[in-house]
Order: sequence, then structure tokens, then C-alpha cells
Amino acid sequence: MTPLVSIIMGSTSDLPVMEKAATFLNDMQVPFEINALSAHRTPQAVEEFAKNAKNRGVKVIIAGAGMAAALPGVIAASTTLPVIGVPIKGSCLDGMDAVMSILQMPPGIPVATVAINGAMNAAILAVEMMSLADSQLAEKFAAYKEGLKNKIEKANKDLAEVKYEYKCN
Amino acid sequence: MTPLVSIIMGSTSDLPVMEKAATFLNDMQVPFEINALSAHRTPQAVEEFAKNAKNRGVKVIIAGAGMAAALPGVIAASTTLPVIGVPIKGSCLDGMDAVMSILQMPPGIPVATVAINGAMNAAILAVEMMSLADSQLAEKFAAYKEGLKNKIEKANKDLAEVKYEYKCN
Amino acid sequence: MTPLVSIIMGSTSDLPVMEKAATFLNDMQVPFEINALSAHRTPQAVEEFAKNAKNRGVKVIIAGAGMAAALPGVIAASTTLPVIGVPIKGSCLDGMDAVMSILQMPPGIPVATVAINGAMNAAILAVEMMSLADSQLAEKFAAYKEGLKNKIEKANKDLAEVKYEYKCN
Amino acid sequence: MTPLVSIIMGSTSDLPVMEKAATFLNDMQVPFEINALSAHRTPQAVEEFAKNAKNRGVKVIIAGAGMAAALPGVIAASTTLPVIGVPIKGSCLDGMDAVMSILQMPPGIPVATVAINGAMNAAILAVEMMSLADSQLAEKFAAYKEGLKNKIEKANKDLAEVKYEYKCN
Amino acid sequence: MTPLVSIIMGSTSDLPVMEKAATFLNDMQVPFEINALSAHRTPQAVEEFAKNAKNRGVKVIIAGAGMAAALPGVIAASTTLPVIGVPIKGSCLDGMDAVMSILQMPPGIPVATVAINGAMNAAILAVEMMSLADSQLAEKFAAYKEGLKNKIEKANKDLAEVKYEYKCN
Amino acid sequence: MTPLVSIIMGSTSDLPVMEKAATFLNDMQVPFEINALSAHRTPQAVEEFAKNAKNRGVKVIIAGAGMAAALPGVIAASTTLPVIGVPIKGSCLDGMDAVMSILQMPPGIPVATVAINGAMNAAILAVEMMSLADSQLAEKFAAYKEGLKNKIEKANKDLAEVKYEYKCN
Amino acid sequence: MTPLVSIIMGSTSDLPVMEKAATFLNDMQVPFEINALSAHRTPQAVEEFAKNAKNRGVKVIIAGAGMAAALPGVIAASTTLPVIGVPIKGSCLDGMDAVMSILQMPPGIPVATVAINGAMNAAILAVEMMSLADSQLAEKFAAYKEGLKNKIEKANKDLAEVKYEYKCN
Amino acid sequence: MTPLVSIIMGSTSDLPVMEKAATFLNDMQVPFEINALSAHRTPQAVEEFAKNAKNRGVKVIIAGAGMAAALPGVIAASTTLPVIGVPIKGSCLDGMDAVMSILQMPPGIPVATVAINGAMNAAILAVEMMSLADSQLAEKFAAYKEGLKNKIEKANKDLAEVKYEYKCN
Repeated sequence: MTPLVSIIMGSTSDLPVMEKAATFLNDMQVPFEINALSAHRTPQAVEEFAKNAKNRGVKVIIAGAGMAAALPGVIAASTTLPVIGVPIKGSCLDGMDAVMSILQMPPGIPVATVAINGAMNAAILAVEMMSLADSQLAEKFAAYKEGLKNKIEKANKDLAEVKYEYKCN
Repeated sequence: MTPLVSIIMGSTSDLPVMEKAATFLNDMQVPFEINALSAHRTPQAVEEFAKNAKNRGVKVIIAGAGMAAALPGVIAASTTLPVIGVPIKGSCLDGMDAVMSILQMPPGIPVATVAINGAMNAAILAVEMMSLADSQLAEKFAAYKEGLKNKIEKANKDLAEVKYEYKCN
Repeated sequence: MTPLVSIIMGSTSDLPVMEKAATFLNDMQVPFEINALSAHRTPQAVEEFAKNAKNRGVKVIIAGAGMAAALPGVIAASTTLPVIGVPIKGSCLDGMDAVMSILQMPPGIPVATVAINGAMNAAILAVEMMSLADSQLAEKFAAYKEGLKNKIEKANKDLAEVKYEYKCN
Repeated sequence: MTPLVSIIMGSTSDLPVMEKAATFLNDMQVPFEINALSAHRTPQAVEEFAKNAKNRGVKVIIAGAGMAAALPGVIAASTTLPVIGVPIKGSCLDGMDAVMSILQMPPGIPVATVAINGAMNAAILAVEMMSLADSQLAEKFAAYKEGLKNKIEKANKDLAEVKYEYKCN
Repeated sequence: MTPLVSIIMGSTSDLPVMEKAATFLNDMQVPFEINALSAHRTPQAVEEFAKNAKNRGVKVIIAGAGMAAALPGVIAASTTLPVIGVPIKGSCLDGMDAVMSILQMPPGIPVATVAINGAMNAAILAVEMMSLADSQLAEKFAAYKEGLKNKIEKANKDLAEVKYEYKCN
Repeated sequence: MTPLVSIIMGSTSDLPVMEKAATFLNDMQVPFEINALSAHRTPQAVEEFAKNAKNRGVKVIIAGAGMAAALPGVIAASTTLPVIGVPIKGSCLDGMDAVMSILQMPPGIPVATVAINGAMNAAILAVEMMSLADSQLAEKFAAYKEGLKNKIEKANKDLAEVKYEYKCN
Repeated sequence: MTPLVSIIMGSTSDLPVMEKAATFLNDMQVPFEINALSAHRTPQAVEEFAKNAKNRGVKVIIAGAGMAAALPGVIAASTTLPVIGVPIKGSCLDGMDAVMSILQMPPGIPVATVAINGAMNAAILAVEMMSLADSQLAEKFAAYKEGLKNKIEKANKDLAEVKYEYKCN
Repeated sequence: MTPLVSIIMGSTSDLPVMEKAATFLNDMQVPFEINALSAHRTPQAVEEFAKNAKNRGVKVIIAGAGMAAALPGVIAASTTLPVIGVPIKGSCLDGMDAVMSILQMPPGIPVATVAINGAMNAAILAVEMMSLADSQLAEKFAAYKEGLKNKIEKANKDLAEVKYEYKCN
């Protein structure tokens, strides 16, 4: 099946973070692909990927990278598809280096940035974008969002019961 | 004409920043609306706006706010439309307070964050999203992006001529 | 018994931090309630809570949240009760994202912010506020504060004895 | 008239910031006093002030200071009244030094911290606290808060009219 | 023996850091005392200590504290002795809160600040100050400093031998 | 004459900073070229430039960029020449966004980063590198460096004379 | 007269900041000298200065520098005199680069760091140190410190009078 | 064999980081030496090293240091060889103190700074510099760089196979 979302990561070591995007898309039954491409180690592959993504039928690109995270911006440079950037926490710094490298794009070439390690939110954002033209997906996503509320409401009830001992005398 | 993009700002003092989004949408001939609504001063109006936006025909919401910038996240909480957040530089801090408040959304409720004061990029991102389902807009945007390249190439030629005196002997 | 303080947290995972507020209120025999409500996942519940708290007899609200911590500010938007915000340390950042999101409120809607993970201090602040109109509570709190001094004075004596070996010859 | 709120600043150079607290209290007809006392230059005066404030009838203390802003915490150490801290932007740093010095109080001695230069919000917080025991003040404050909403709603209408030219063709 | 250096810490939990100061003073045979006093929990004791230190024969005060570390500055406020501040790393933040609270003293009341957790360096600084008037101590310290060089020179020789395998072919 | 150093900037607005590199190279009589190329607006031009630079006879590349400054890293990705990066201060942030984007390169693809706006130092570094194989240039540079010392020594003498009035009586 | 304090700055452009140290020493009638020496541009001169300072009769060294401010630490490396470091605000960054470079000295070689641009406090610290062995200076300094209190007390009285209009009706 | 690259570290505790530079040079068959020298503990040895390195045949110096990392800059002050600085992560701070101390060099004395703990990249940079005058080394390095691409391409293929289960139905 043609992938609609392409998940790219700068290094295979980013997989534990980025697979949360894959899981969510899977749950929403959105076809996707997942690859490792580096703006600094495989620049031609990145450019080729970015130039061809639209013609291959990809609708949204999710790109995760850490440190001097050029990947999302470099992809955005060579496509007119929306690009979502996931800053990844590193082993030295807390991910603010990646936030700066992804968020602070110059006028003309935006990257839709999400929270540090926020790969699941990147997938949700992709689903929101595709829902603009896919009412079936929009319904699935609305049901998911309703479910979020229910989960926290249930957790809350459990909390009220479990925490009875805190009530004062 | 039904607005497809809704530009919201937390305070009318954000207008000099946010009007760059309006200008770009105007150039792309995308119908839009522009309003000031505050998550902290007019919370019910924000919620009502967020709940009804989709039914009114809005496709993408751009929300700009400074300081403890709750506006984009609070709108995202009550809609399934994609929400783009613009962190606005303040008079005390450099805008990192707004970045933190907009970018670091919890799992389930993303905001597509752009650079500090990056309202034009927010509008471009909105156009990229809507282009997924509007091939005419997609073409207009592709032409715009091609133009960016030409502008810098022309600037470069001017630079080469003007800066001749730096060439060494 | 009618709760006088309402402890709200953005996620049940904040409980290990927020229960220190509960413990202190329990020690001071102040009736309280404890709930999880999310500005981003259950926005209507938050607004309903905030609007009704005063009429239910609540005097002070303590709201703890991490990341883009909109919860305290959004509650403050819909009540005239004092709201105390507890920024909670996250798994990626050290809690400064939550500090920014809670502290930097715009003019008109303050949140009384305490230290990162400072839930006990939030409860103390609530007791100080309620003591303005409750002299019995004021006395209990004065005794507690006196006790703080004694504890450190005792620790100091122990230190002097234990650390004798550092004295030089 | 006995002052109910005491506004203290670390240096008379903080007056342009701190007088916004005075203005708001004046508007709410809350009796107040305003003084300059320094934790580092007049420590005994600070301690004496803090110890006697409650007996003089003061209900809430607002303390503003910049740089290594010890003043709010040192006052909090010697009173059981609620202390609100206002971090003041300096000439070298942006006020984060004062935020750290005021916000990060140790367990047992909280300071209710507001935004950098947020003196008006400090006064609002003081009014919210005193409203717990003063229903007349509570009503005045509720009216003020309602007015905030009206102001932004009016600004919004003006915006809609003024910005008509941005609407696309 | 009369203590010449007084080591003060804001909490007994700071002992693992502060005892490095004690160890160094012991090595240099400088009489010292070590106590826990809190600017926020035992303010009167701190002031009394600061006022009397000089008359008791103390020459230099070393004060370590974490978070909103008011202790060194508050001691400096009430003595004309030199005060050395040691910012202590906390459990949430990395110690920059304490750096800001100790370093950024206002004109008139300096604190000689050392590195985060730099208690040994604080003791060395105290020895340097006292050496101005104590030539015997000055000699002991000069010998210590010479030793530092020797230690690294020896480590360097070991390194050269151990790391032979890195030499290329 | 074949340029030995290629100065690239992300935007012509960076010229006031980057021309300091040009001036120094001119002083050292090193042939150079100066161009504007953007990793985000003219990605193919950047890649083509990077791939061909070595064959055109360029020895060192100096790349200056602000915000999410991908330019130096992207050039480094497609050449084996040494690349020197100049982080440029922006209009919102102080240049730390560019530092992060340039400095924190992943293993395998270094960028030699200099201070914010440090274009002259970038040119000096280029001269140091080329001096490894050009003894005439090495001599010119050694003379320049000696001159730095003389300049500060002369300034120091002027200072001693001018500031006589500070000497105390 | 033999200078007792040596004021060193990394660049003559630091003079507007460092002359506040000179002014205070002048007021206290402490003989001093003032020079510009750079750890990076005149390293031998710095080392020679540091090695000879003690023998020339200097008691305390005050070293101010900005950016990668190695000067205070490098001087401390070659003397057993106490060295006070003044981090100087730069044109790009706010002085935190200099704070890091001066404050974070390794074990064995402390620098007594004061606030950003805090040259006057550096001079006060020098006077406190020299007062340990000079009772006449100690008295002069105690009088100065007492005067600080009087100044703020007088300012406070003026404030009370001037600000009468803030009192509420 | 005469070492062409000299690896210096501020403390032998930096060896686990710095040995990555040694490993890479070994792989490229570049003769090198590795030593520990401290700008603060063995300043004369550092100066002597820096002054003699060029005459001993060293081409490039790699200097790693943590905290107030003066070492790279102090070496650069006394040589005309290119100096590459490696900021090393500390036990309290995340390495930003070392970044500031190494990166922010004043005009005239650059240090080529790499990422925090980026010792391997420092060695690569050294190889790039030496390749300007050594075509054999240039070829070896080009092959290494080509290999980087192959490694990530292979990892990518493995990823595609392993992650088959993420493909949606």
C-alpha cells in the first residue's frame, strides 16, 4: 500500500523515540514508511527523498533528529509537503540543541515543531492534516481524542478512591 | 467568503507580528479571518471558538501568543483541526517563555510550533496543509517557493558585483 | 466535610509530587480534595471545575502541571479564587518549561508560582492565605513554623557532635 | 488608615515597576503602604518589618527585588503572612536571576512568585487572598475581572473593522 | 582553639559537599567550625551569627546553600568579614538557581562566589585571604599549590606509558 | 585569481558580520570569494557548491548563518574540505540558536565553530589552516599575531598615562 | 606608593566597567594600579605579572574580562594571592559566557567571582580581605557599610513623602 | 615517529572522552601524541608546550577541557598552529560552561570548537586540515567519509526489514 506518511530519523538510534509515531499511525490505520536518512551523512539521499516524496504519494513527512538537527529543515527545503520536526534528546544536552535547530527556521521554509521526543504528537499532527481531506480518518481521530478524555476521567475516579486516606478528619 | 484559516492572537499588541501571516495568506488568495482572543482573559470565547471552528468551515488555526502562551494549546484541546502556534517575543524575556508554553504539549494534543515571531512561516505551513486537498493552491505555493530561490540567487549576483573590492590583488 | 483546598494535577503521574501538598494539609487538619484534570485533555471539566469551585466552598486552588503547563493559568482564568501553581519536573527538561508556562502570566490573571516540584510549599501558601480569616489555623501554622527552626537547630547540634573529627589540632 | 497590603522594594530604582501594584490597590480602594528596604543593605530593618507586619494589621506583603533577590524570601522567613515576590528585570540579565532567587524557596518557607516585573499581578493576587475574608472586595474584584473580558472583546471588534483590508478577494 | 574560618551550610543535607572545605582546612591546620543555619528557617540565628563572627575571632566565612540560596548574601549583609559563597546543586535544577542567588549581589555587599559544589575551592580562597597576614600559612599553601603541579605531571607520565597502544604504526 | 577561501552566508543580511572575514583575508592577501547561499532556500546550489569547491581549488570554507543555521553542516556533509561555522546573532534570540545548530554536529561531520558573529576569527582560523602548507602565509600571520600583542601593550601604556588620576594619594 | 590592589582588564574597552573598582579603592585610600593585559593576546605578560605581583607587594588582584574570560583563572594559576574575577557583559551575550569562564574553576585554583559588571563589589571584596590585617582600613570600611544603610533609609523617607498620593482614600 | 597531532586534555579524567580522537587518528595512521596539561595547574608547562609545538613538527593541536575550560584558548594564545577545542561535559553542568569558555574567544585568537564531548570530530577536523597538504591522507579520509554513508544505508535496510510489523494493514 502506498505510504501516506513518511517517518524519517537522522540515526537508527532514534528508533525508540520515533516508533511511537509509527504505533499511532498503525492504530489509525494510516499507511506509512519508516527510514533512517542523515542530512549530514547521506545528504544526496535526503534530497532525493524530499524531491520525490510528493510524487510517490506521500502526504506528510515526520522527521526526527537530535543535536544540530538539520534533517527536518533540509527536507522542508526540497518539498512543498508539510514537514513535522521532532527534536530528540541527546546524551549530553537535554534536547534544546535540537529544538533550536528545528524550530528557528528562516522565513519561507517552516517546520512544524513538536515537543522534545514528541513523536506521538507528530503522528497526531499528521493525522489532523490528512483529516482535512479524509472524513473517515477525521472520524477515527475524533473518536481517539474523545477517548483521551475518558481515560483521564477514569484515572481521576481511581485516584479519588485510592487516595481516600488523604481526606482529613 | 468563508474563512479557511483563522488567525487568533492573545492580545491586540501581537498584531504587528501576526499580520505577516495575514499578508501571506492574502498573497496566496486564501480567505482568512483575524481575531484577538485570550486563553486567560476570555476563556469561554476561546473554547466556543475552538469548538465551532471546524463546523464554520475553518481548515487550519494559527494562534500567536507571548509569555505563558496557553492560547494555542487550549484551542488545540477543543478542536480536531491542526493548530499552528507562534511564540511571540515579550518585553522582558526573548520569547523562550512562549516557546516552552507552546512547544512542550503533552502526548495527545500537539501544537505545530514555528520560530519566535514566525507568523509568516505559520501561514506557509497552513498553506502546505491545505494544499494536500487543493491542487490549485499547491501550484500557487510551489511557484512561491521557486521564487524564494530566485530572490536569493539575484541577491547573490548583486553581492558578487557590489563586493568586487574585497577580491584580493 | 466541605473541602477548603482543591488540589488539581494535570496527570495522575504527578501524584508523587502533589501528594506532599495533601500530606501537609492533612497535618494542618484542613479539609481538601484531590483530582486530576487536564487543560489539554479535559478542557470542559477544567472550566466547569474552575467556575464552580468558589460556590462549592473552596477557598484556594493548588494546580500542579508539567511541560506546557497551562492548567494553573486556565483555572485562574475562570475563577476569582487565588490559584497556586506547582511547576513539575519532566522526563526531558528539568521543569523550566513548566516554570515559564505557569509564572509568566499576562497582566490581570496571576498564578502564585512556587518552586519546581514545590507542592508542600504550595500547601503552606494556601494555609497562610486561609489563616488571614481563620485565627485557629493561623496558630497551628505559627507552631509549625516555629518547629522548622527547632528541627534545624537540633540537626545543627547533632552536626557539631558528629563532625568533631574535622576540628583541627 | 491601617495599610492592609505592604509593598516593599529592594531599591528605590524599582519604583517604576512596583508602582503598578500601588495603582491597582488604589483602584480597588485597598489601603496600602510602600517602602524601600534591602535584605542586603538594611537587614535589621527588614527583619523588624517582617516580624511586626502582622501585628500592625498588614494582611499581605508584596516584595519586589532584582538580581540576587533575597528580599521576598527573607521577609517570608520572619512572618506567617503570605508573601508575594516580584522578580525585577536588571540592567545586565533579563530577570531570570531574580526569578531563581525568589521562586526556588526551600520546603517550609514559600514565596508566591509572579512574572518578571509583574507587580500589577502581585496586587491582584493580594486582592484575591484578602477577598477570602472580605466579600465587598470580592465583588469589586469580580467586576474588575469581568471588565478584562469586555476590554479584549471591544479591542477584538475594533480589530475586525480596522483590519478589513486583509480579507482576501 | 578559636576557629578562624566558619563553615555554614543552609541544610545538613549539604554536608557531603561542604565537608570538602573542612578537609582542606584540616590539611592546612587552620582551626575552623562547621554549622547548619538557614536564612529562611533560622533567620535570627543567622543574623546573630553574622554580627558576632568578627568579635569571636573568625576571619573568613564560607557559606554554602542551594536553590534560592539567600544564606551567603544575608550573612554578608551583617558582617564586614569576607564571605565566600558555594552554590550547591539541587535535586531539580543543576545549581544555576543557587549561582544566580549568590553571585548577582547588589552593589555594596559582595559575596565571593566559587563553582557549583566548589567547597574545596572556597577553603583554598579562605586560606589565600588569611595568608595575606600569616606568612607561615602562606608557605604551607605555596607548597600545596606546587604539589598540584606535581600530581598532574605524574599523572601525565602514567598516561604516556599506559596509552602506548594509541601510538600509530 | 583562484579563490582559496570561500565565504558563504545564509542571507545577504549577514554581510555586515561576514565582511570582517573578507577584510582579514584581504589584509593577508589571500584570494577569496564571497557568496550568499541558503541551505533552506537554495539547497541544490549549496550542494553543488560544496561538491565542487575542492576541485575549483578552494582550500577552506567559511559559512555564516543565523537561527536554525543548517548551512555550515550541510556544506560539511558534501565536502572533505574543512568548514568553519560562524553563528550569527538574530533579531529575536542572541545567537545561541545558531550556536546550537552549528556546534552540535554528529560524529563524522565536524564544523569548526567560532564565537557568535566571530567572522574575523573564522578568517584567522582559515589562515592558520592554510599556513600548514604555505610558509609565506605562515610568516605573514605570525607577524600579525605579534602585532596584536603590541597593540594591547601600547593601549596599556596609554591607559597608565591617561588614568593617572585614579592613583591614590 | 606601592599598589596593594592590582586591577587588570582583558581589554581597554572594559575600562568603563572596571573604573568603578578604581573609584572605590580611591575612596578608601587604598593604593592601586590599573592595567590591560590579555590572557589570549599577551600571555607572557600575564604570566610575568602573576608571578611577580606578590613580590611587588600586591595583596589582591582584581581581574575583569568578557566572553571566554580566561584572564582571572590564568592569573590565579600563577600566584598564591587571592584573585577576584569580574565577568563583563558582552555585545552579543549578556555576560553569562564570562560568568561560566570565571566561576567554574577546577579544584585547586579558585577565583572569587562577583556579579556581571560588578567591579565595585570586587573592590569591596578586596578591602574586606585586606581589612583582615589592617584595622584602620577595617574601620573605614565599616563606616562605609553603615553609610549604605543610611542612604537607603533616607531614600525610603523621601519615597514615603513623594509617594503620598498612592495612599488610598 | 614525529607526532603530527598533539592531543592535550586538562585532566586525566577527560581520557574516556579524548581517546576517541586518538582512535580516529590511529585508524587514519596519523602519528599523534597524547598528554594531560592544565592551564590552571601547570600553566608554564602549557605555555612551553604551545610555544614549541610548531618547531617539534606538530601540525594541529586538539585540546579538551571541562568547566572554565581555559586550556584551548591559552594554547592558541602562544602558537600560530590551528587549535581545536573539545568542551567536556562536567559532573554538575552539562558542558555549556566549557562551550562558553572555549567558543567565545576574542577577536584575534580563534579556537575551532566542536560539539560537547566531540573528540572524534576534533580528530576528523584535524585530518581535514592536514589533508590540505597531504593528498594521500585526503584520499584515506574521503574513503572514510564515503563509508559513513554506506553504514547508514545498511542500517536503513536492516531497519526496513526489522520494522516490518509497523507497516499497516
